[in-house]
Amino acid sequence: MNQVGRNIPRLEVHAKVTGRADYTHHLRLPGMLYGKVFRSTVPHGLIRSIDTQAAQALPGVHRVITGADIQKLIPEPYYGPAFHDQPILALKKVRHVGEPVAVVLASDPHVAEQAVQLISAEYEELPAVYDEVEAMQPDILVHDVLRPAGTFADLKHLKGRGGTNVALDYHLRRGDVDAAMARADHVIEHTFKTQQCLHLAFEPFVSVAEPGDQRLTIYTANQSPSFVRIEIARLFGWPENRVRVKVPYLGGGFGGKLYIKLEALVAALSMIVRRPVKIALTMEEQFYMITKHATTFRIKSGVGKDGRLVARKCEVYWNGGAYADIGPRVAQKSGFTAAGPYDIDNVSVDSYEIYTNRTPAGALRGFGVPQLVWAYESHTDLIARQLGIDPVDFRRKNLLRNGRPHASGTVLQDAAITEVFDSVVARMGWDKPFDRGSETLRRGRGIAIGLKAVISPTTSVAIVNISADGSTTAYTGTVDMGQGSDTAYALIVGEVLGIAAEEVRVIHSDTDVTPYDMGTLGSRSLYHMGNAMRLAAEDARTKLRALAVEAGLPEGTNYPPAEVFKKRYGMQAGNVIGTASFVPSYKPPAPQTGQSDNVTPFWMVGGAGVEVEVDTETGKVHILRLVNAVDCGKPINPGVARAQISGAAIMQLGFTLSEAMHLDGGQVTNASLADYKIPGIGDIPPMDNEVVAAEQHSGPFGAKGIGESGTFGVSPAIANAIHDATGVRIMELPITAEAVLRALRAQAGRPLDDE
Amino acid sequence: MNQVGRNIPRLEVHAKVTGRADYTHHLRLPGMLYGKVFRSTVPHGLIRSIDTQAAQALPGVHRVITGADIQKLIPEPYYGPAFHDQPILALKKVRHVGEPVAVVLASDPHVAEQAVQLISAEYEELPAVYDEVEAMQPDILVHDVLRPAGTFADLKHLKGRGGTNVALDYHLRRGDVDAAMARADHVIEHTFKTQQCLHLAFEPFVSVAEPGDQRLTIYTANQSPSFVRIEIARLFGWPENRVRVKVPYLGGGFGGKLYIKLEALVAALSMIVRRPVKIALTMEEQFYMITKHATTFRIKSGVGKDGRLVARKCEVYWNGGAYADIGPRVAQKSGFTAAGPYDIDNVSVDSYEIYTNRTPAGALRGFGVPQLVWAYESHTDLIARQLGIDPVDFRRKNLLRNGRPHASGTVLQDAAITEVFDSVVARMGWDKPFDRGSETLRRGRGIAIGLKAVISPTTSVAIVNISADGSTTAYTGTVDMGQGSDTAYALIVGEVLGIAAEEVRVIHSDTDVTPYDMGTLGSRSLYHMGNAMRLAAEDARTKLRALAVEAGLPEGTNYPPAEVFKKRYGMQAGNVIGTASFVPSYKPPAPQTGQSDNVTPFWMVGGAGVEVEVDTETGKVHILRLVNAVDCGKPINPGVARAQISGAAIMQLGFTLSEAMHLDGGQVTNASLADYKIPGIGDIPPMDNEVVAAEQHSGPFGAKGIGESGTFGVSPAIANAIHDATGVRIMELPITAEAVLRALRAQAGRPLDDE
Repeated sequence: MNQVGRNIPRLEVHAKVTGRADYTHHLRLPGMLYGKVFRSTVPHGLIRSIDTQAAQALPGVHRVITGADIQKLIPEPYYGPAFHDQPILALKKVRHVGEPVAVVLASDPHVAEQAVQLISAEYEELPAVYDEVEAMQPDILVHDVLRPAGTFADLKHLKGRGGTNVALDYHLRRGDVDAAMARADHVIEHTFKTQQCLHLAFEPFVSVAEPGDQRLTIYTANQSPSFVRIEIARLFGWPENRVRVKVPYLGGGFGGKLYIKLEALVAALSMIVRRPVKIALTMEEQFYMITKHATTFRIKSGVGKDGRLVARKCEVYWNGGAYADIGPRVAQKSGFTAAGPYDIDNVSVDSYEIYTNRTPAGALRGFGVPQLVWAYESHTDLIARQLGIDPVDFRRKNLLRNGRPHASGTVLQDAAITEVFDSVVARMGWDKPFDRGSETLRRGRGIAIGLKAVISPTTSVAIVNISADGSTTAYTGTVDMGQGSDTAYALIVGEVLGIAAEEVRVIHSDTDVTPYDMGTLGSRSLYHMGNAMRLAAEDARTKLRALAVEAGLPEGTNYPPAEVFKKRYGMQAGNVIGTASFVPSYKPPAPQTGQSDNVTPFWMVGGAGVEVEVDTETGKVHILRLVNAVDCGKPINPGVARAQISGAAIMQLGFTLSEAMHLDGGQVTNASLADYKIPGIGDIPPMDNEVVAAEQHSGPFGAKGIGESGTFGVSPAIANAIHDATGVRIMELPITAEAVLRALRAQAGRPLDDE
Repeated sequence: MNQVGRNIPRLEVHAKVTGRADYTHHLRLPGMLYGKVFRSTVPHGLIRSIDTQAAQALPGVHRVITGADIQKLIPEPYYGPAFHDQPILALKKVRHVGEPVAVVLASDPHVAEQAVQLISAEYEELPAVYDEVEAMQPDILVHDVLRPAGTFADLKHLKGRGGTNVALDYHLRRGDVDAAMARADHVIEHTFKTQQCLHLAFEPFVSVAEPGDQRLTIYTANQSPSFVRIEIARLFGWPENRVRVKVPYLGGGFGGKLYIKLEALVAALSMIVRRPVKIALTMEEQFYMITKHATTFRIKSGVGKDGRLVARKCEVYWNGGAYADIGPRVAQKSGFTAAGPYDIDNVSVDSYEIYTNRTPAGALRGFGVPQLVWAYESHTDLIARQLGIDPVDFRRKNLLRNGRPHASGTVLQDAAITEVFDSVVARMGWDKPFDRGSETLRRGRGIAIGLKAVISPTTSVAIVNISADGSTTAYTGTVDMGQGSDTAYALIVGEVLGIAAEEVRVIHSDTDVTPYDMGTLGSRSLYHMGNAMRLAAEDARTKLRALAVEAGLPEGTNYPPAEVFKKRYGMQAGNVIGTASFVPSYKPPAPQTGQSDNVTPFWMVGGAGVEVEVDTETGKVHILRLVNAVDCGKPINPGVARAQISGAAIMQLGFTLSEAMHLDGGQVTNASLADYKIPGIGDIPPMDNEVVAAEQHSGPFGAKGIGESGTFGVSPAIANAIHDATGVRIMELPITAEAVLRALRAQAGRPLDDE
């Protein structure tokens, strides 16, 4: 019975459709208090005083907690995955508008909300910095000193560094870029920008902490329960086994619910008041939690007259906001692919994670790569145009092929760059006649392709337990946030054990129950946990065979598990428990050059082709067709793989055309879903999504992750198509109608502002 | 750091004392309905009709359910561990007063209670039988036909047997009893009886079922969650992995909360109404759930003039009540020790489990052995008296010693019979002068010793998980019902891993999380799960060492676990998961002769000595001193071991002196704690409890179970002491003041009834 490759609905679909699926928002515990957050109104300032008296006096208020109260419990209340820079509640200083300053606790959330309005704080305002390039100058310092977490050896040298907003600077050097540029026939340079935007999961952030007897249980909508456990234990000075983190289903994550979000806050509050505490954010409050990096990317390429890229120089500035979160890793781990999926002998990358007085930025579906692809694929298209080469031909001439070294020094393997590119080109009908529209409704086509490495090394552990009737339960720390991970693991376990996926029960994301997993992020789960799960199932199968031998059954025959157990234990009794951990091999890049011959266990490839129609009178861009192709190796569950492509592409469509946080003096001026526009059902274009024929030989049954790849090509393909349609080039996201109209008017010599 | 043998408080003591420990009674779920049970008022009858209309019409009643409704869901709704004879709700027939006939479901338990009063049922009454010896005659049949569960090969031959109330007949034959009796110098025969009594845990029976998406979760106060899972899955025709059974702490179990009690009922109800259902019994309702077997024991011994026992013939009749529960196993697995801890060449045992129209009987702290010891140690004392030999000398002459075959054919090993006996005798000061009291307050001494085998073969599976900081979690299906099992396993795991027990987190009794365990019963857990836990910890230790090697650390050195993980996985990441299953070797006894050379993995030994003062004017027995000695091998946690002895002895004191269910025409006339007297704090005598120096070589660190051994000697030691004090012999439990006074008056030739 072949399981892998079966196209089956997600196992939890019935539970979700009938409203039986568990979410943290549902949770109510006896004696639970609701917390509402009082937030900073200034982008940068010293806290002079916080007046909580009126709030505390409001009937029904249990207690108002400030940073000082937290510090009595936890002397160093700073958390973060890469840097320990973020206080549980602001201490002395606030660094962005919306930063949590105090919390009101009450049995009735409406009372808590009302009491928050009665709190006031006085600040000594400090000058603030919002732009990533400006913040490279140390005129205004967001943090006095860097506080890298002790976890990572490669960040240790940053400890105590001061006088800078650069949290991390990453450098890759391959060949001799300057010499190659000097020799090149053409040297072309551009600067591209992306905006700060949001994950906006339909399930806003929510966490509950329940103090136990010398321990603590946290129920939370989080993508990395193992990290939460370890970090909360660190904050309290406890061993890991005193903290339990339970994650039910997630109503979306997209990288926003990684690491610590509300968890340290509810944990500290619950330990102070010795009662369960729940904090559930409103949609609006999500604008102050975590965002996608705004970026500035200066990219310069040297090209020979034969159209071969000979050198590329990349400078990427990541706007990290007020706290590092995982930003330094974004700058570093995505930074090294900034030169794109091209075979270039001379590459230089400088990538900077920069503190500013904005809402912090972290990982968002692509871990920085969509910002990079936006720039390098817009740039690539511009080069081809400048050189008068068809953009498809130009790319084909330069695409990196398996067996050739990537700029990092790692030889490309199992990256279906050519297949993805060919698939998009073929399905676009690139060589067929194309209707270019009318004077006011102009049509154009664009194409783009991106490459991503997975963050490495990371560890996953899995357990597969066969019960005495042969029914099987798989244990995984992967958070199922809609991507269908439970179902994928059931297929993998079923494949190994020869049973239907539907018969495998998957238990996920409870640190008391499911073993360690680094986190559900960066498309790593299917590969890492999938491999661990396959190995665990194989371990269980081996142990079952050993049990049959113990039971005196002749070797080499496959007995039904129920028979083996009954024979060995005298009745329906016992379990066979297979376990496995998986961590890929990895060689850290050399400092300064970023070179390593083993920098990632697998590569993700995604490409997009777009046909647009631009209304030249309004600037409105209408996507006529969106073609996506992705390399996910051999898909475990093809239907879910295609759904991942479509979800990623639609999400990126929003970031391309409409989504942007608007700041005015550090204040977010559109912090609501009425003003911040995400794609609605009417915005979704006709789509054509394909998983190309490929195989990731090191992956579980040839598979690898797919959650992000569908985002890569969308933005530059659209910009390229607009250029193709209208001759104007948009250098900054989002590509709103206004931006297009401005560009059209500027092109026509009558700028919009003049009217 | 030595952990095993440390005298530490139970790990959960703080949680219990502060009221944080979880119990099923605390549980409330959203949408939960409370069930209240309508019970049979007749001991034996055909159901003519059940009128639920008025109950159904009561405002607030959600639904009234009868057996017919259950049968629509489950066509064969019969359950039981040994026989599938017990209907979830009565079908066609009722077999004892208090049998569940219908259930009212309501959101408010008081409404449900009120509605139960509005239900009426009409029965065609049938003649009933209550006495176990009478019921040997098949004049009145409780069941038409026997329905042994398919689970056990040795019961299969009973299937379909009809025309009898004997659920199981067990026979042991060793040597030639009749010939030896014929040759014996003395042949002495007695008949002893015990009463039906109750477990009476302070936490009454309670179960909650919560229907999920194609599965079911049961929260229940139960000692055998793995059994519940398998049995509920069987009833629904599901695989095991669709049923989850969670057991928090128990407020006492004592064998009452074994197998299915309320679980099948709440499971069926919740599946019918698709809402969570809770049923919590009152103290009074416990009288209709499960009891301790009343017994009649005919025992005959042949003795040589040298005082050596040469032959013993035992006939034991177990009053199993209306449904088998585990009664057949009691009759069989305890039956084979009916001849006592003596070295007798010729033994015959016949043991009968018998259906009657009483509340069913099952396992109660000792699994039948206290009833047996009551008889054989009273009998032994009477023989010694008749032969004019000091009862200590007589026993010492006949005690079975290690290396000699038990009546079952199994050679005794690691059974500290001599040590236990010597300990009691020494601490009693048997050879010292003894104050024999006055004419009206007479004093006497008695002694008794018993032997028990553990039910076999049974399986336990354990998991030991080391986190990346070295903190450790142990997973066990053992239900911690006050016996300190969590703490014992923490000590065992700590011993293996070289860490303090307090650092080991123990997670118990959740079938989704903890692996299979046969059940917490018959003093099996410390030995079986203790061995599994030790092996699992050793497996984890081995894997940790392998991880160190993988990490490139030199072999043979002990690195702190945190260092190994960090080196192997690049950060605080991963787990090491050790697993093990344990099932002892076992050879089933031959049919009819009951002979086997490996009938039990270990023997339990318990002895008691008592000094009493009897008020001859009232019959009141005052226990002056109670000396207990027990063989538990090497104790894991000596303080808890002593507490087990004292708890068992006090419980047995209640069964000896006061506790008895009184029946009148099948009706229990004292179904309340006001009328059914258990020992209060003022009834507890001065006690002297000792664990003798011993070792169970096959046990974990030399240990074995101790939960029951403290019960063995108490009852006969008291009867023997009363005889010693007054010259009267009580042949039946309980030994109430009235019973003693009657005996004294009969002895004096003026029976009490004559006054």
